Amino acid sequence: MDEVRLARAYLSRVAEPPAGALGVLVEHLGPVEAAGLVRRGEVPRAVLDETSARAGVEVAAADLERAAAAGIRLVTPEDEEWPAWPLLCLANARDRGLRWAAPPLALWVRGPAQLDEVLGRSAAIVGARAATSYGEHTAAEFAYELAGRGVTVVSGAAFGIDGAAHRGALGAQGTTLAVLACGADISYPAAHTTLLNHVAKQGAVISEYPPGTTPAKYRFLVRNRLIAALAVGTVVVEAGRRSGARNTAASAAALGKPVLAVPGPVSSPMSQGCHDLIRSGTATLATSVPDILEAVGAIGDVADPRAPSPPRPTDGLAPQAVQLHDALSRSSPAPPDHLARACGVPLERVRALLPELELVGLARRTEEGWLGT
Amino acid sequence: MDEVRLARAYLSRVAEPPAGALGVLVEHLGPVEAAGLVRRGEVPRAVLDETSARAGVEVAAADLERAAAAGIRLVTPEDEEWPAWPLLCLANARDRGLRWAAPPLALWVRGPAQLDEVLGRSAAIVGARAATSYGEHTAAEFAYELAGRGVTVVSGAAFGIDGAAHRGALGAQGTTLAVLACGADISYPAAHTTLLNHVAKQGAVISEYPPGTTPAKYRFLVRNRLIAALAVGTVVVEAGRRSGARNTAASAAALGKPVLAVPGPVSSPMSQGCHDLIRSGTATLATSVPDILEAVGAIGDVADPRAPSPPRPTDGLAPQAVQLHDALSRSSPAPPDHLARACGVPLERVRALLPELELVGLARRTEEGWLGT
Repeated sequence: MDEVRLARAYLSRVAEPPAGALGVLVEHLGPVEAAGLVRRGEVPRAVLDETSARAGVEVAAADLERAAAAGIRLVTPEDEEWPAWPLLCLANARDRGLRWAAPPLALWVRGPAQLDEVLGRSAAIVGARAATSYGEHTAAEFAYELAGRGVTVVSGAAFGIDGAAHRGALGAQGTTLAVLACGADISYPAAHTTLLNHVAKQGAVISEYPPGTTPAKYRFLVRNRLIAALAVGTVVVEAGRRSGARNTAASAAALGKPVLAVPGPVSSPMSQGCHDLIRSGTATLATSVPDILEAVGAIGDVADPRAPSPPRPTDGLAPQAVQLHDALSRSSPAPPDHLARACGVPLERVRALLPELELVGLARRTEEGWLGT
Repeated sequence: MDEVRLARAYLSRVAEPPAGALGVLVEHLGPVEAAGLVRRGEVPRAVLDETSARAGVEVAAADLERAAAAGIRLVTPEDEEWPAWPLLCLANARDRGLRWAAPPLALWVRGPAQLDEVLGRSAAIVGARAATSYGEHTAAEFAYELAGRGVTVVSGAAFGIDGAAHRGALGAQGTTLAVLACGADISYPAAHTTLLNHVAKQGAVISEYPPGTTPAKYRFLVRNRLIAALAVGTVVVEAGRRSGARNTAASAAALGKPVLAVPGPVSSPMSQGCHDLIRSGTATLATSVPDILEAVGAIGDVADPRAPSPPRPTDGLAPQAVQLHDALSRSSPAPPDHLARACGVPLERVRALLPELELVGLARRTEEGWLGT
């Protein structure tokens, strides 16, 4: 077991994410030297603040063994698999002063999906736990179609929208990533154990927390920034006024990533958060998979996704011709002067327009006058 | 019967609206002189184009009598009741080259509402004829609440959303205006005869077409610009991809008026038009009456309309305090050093934060350690 990997495992446990100051130290000195300084407490005040409580917790080797036994690998910035490009936005945001945006020091990954490969075309689909059947149906449909088009579906494995999104992607035999707020070896919620095992078989279960870490409320918020960062764009399917999904959306927006929200009935509290996001300009409105593909930059997959409205026979006619056509009866023939008065178009114009309408099949000459068709 | 009124009645019938060139002539010469020139055909080519077909139709006196018999008055720009301010946007748009925006030459009005008084606080509520029950319910609710707050509800008396809007306003004993694409003496659709009579009793039925004019397809589009112009803002409740309500919304936007659209289920074709309007930026999203009041400039009626989200006990706590609070168990007391490792906050900070949490009732000291509350 190499010392870089051991150092990363140690650092992954020593600080509660997001650990911005420690991250900067590690970037400057490398994980091995940084870990040594942290152990000895020879670090700047800000790093001490993030590390002193657990500096003495030396379980890196045990963590790596325990992870391996559970089919979990440690993916670090030193590995080719590290999703460097998606996570760059976190470092940039941290450097702009957003403390919450500090990138993870390492990721614990359970599943065959290679993080450097599957995130280039990806969308986070997130939403309320207390979702409605409308929301769950929509999330599952979107995820199914996206996954079927090769887009990786990222979510948080929660009840409601998250679970529906994972299931939809799995149903399409697609790739889906579950990003957890606890160790990747812990099934949370417990009722999603089978779902998480399925995700780990077909995609990946991901966490920045070492094995055995239990979920805690603030870890969900920290986890949300990781979902927002990993995916190209974030789609909120349903969200109450105060919901974790809105936090994910706000994180994605702050990271400069596209945010979409799915509208719903105005009477549904579960759509309020989505409507607020759209109204405030944080999210653009999404009603279909093409909307999402457009936003996550996977255009070209679809020609022009939205069905054009069907043409009408009078499309392209000049206004006076439309007026005249409307004045024509289908049953009672009328002479040109009657038609002119009825529609207010000058008589000579009516005389010229009637044969034109006849030519395109919109008028018919009879012995008693003109009919519309 | 004065000659100005007779001239306006004549001009109202002589040209099929929108009659931009005739309108400019009348503005310059006044209705009496303009009517004389139109009769004799001594007008510029563009005016001739709008008037030659019906220049010889001399039924002004009969129209005014017929109108009076049906309880309809002619309101002209010479009258105090003329809604000069709302209609100004049409003349401005016409002068910018928008042919369709020509203002009406006169309005035929049936009902007690005084147009110069009731439009200052008004909203058009329009939408699909083939509305869903969700759409009709929403339109009726919004109209009821708006009318109850003294906002005049303007619509087009069609089946579906329009009818629901009028009914909602009537139910609140409010003022509602029905703007028709046919004479104000004609009930269209016929099934709305009772509704239109009710509107005429409590608000007004309005048309720029003289009595007896039958509806025609293009007159609905022309009528839509009038709805858009008369109301301060326009709310589209439901609209298919290709719907008259979208035309009203586009007119309102072109006239510089606020446009709002109500979202709905993404699976509902009747909400597609609304979603398109929001996505394209033509409309802002509206989910509630306060959204509409805000847009139509009737703020001040409502303090802060939207319910604030309920506060949480941990609101306002520093991040480390939140982390510590999350780490506290409600059943198993823990000493500060355990808590420090659990939440990753330095021990001395934990020792300082625990009494602070106790002070605000979020932690409790026991003999075996600390509990969360």
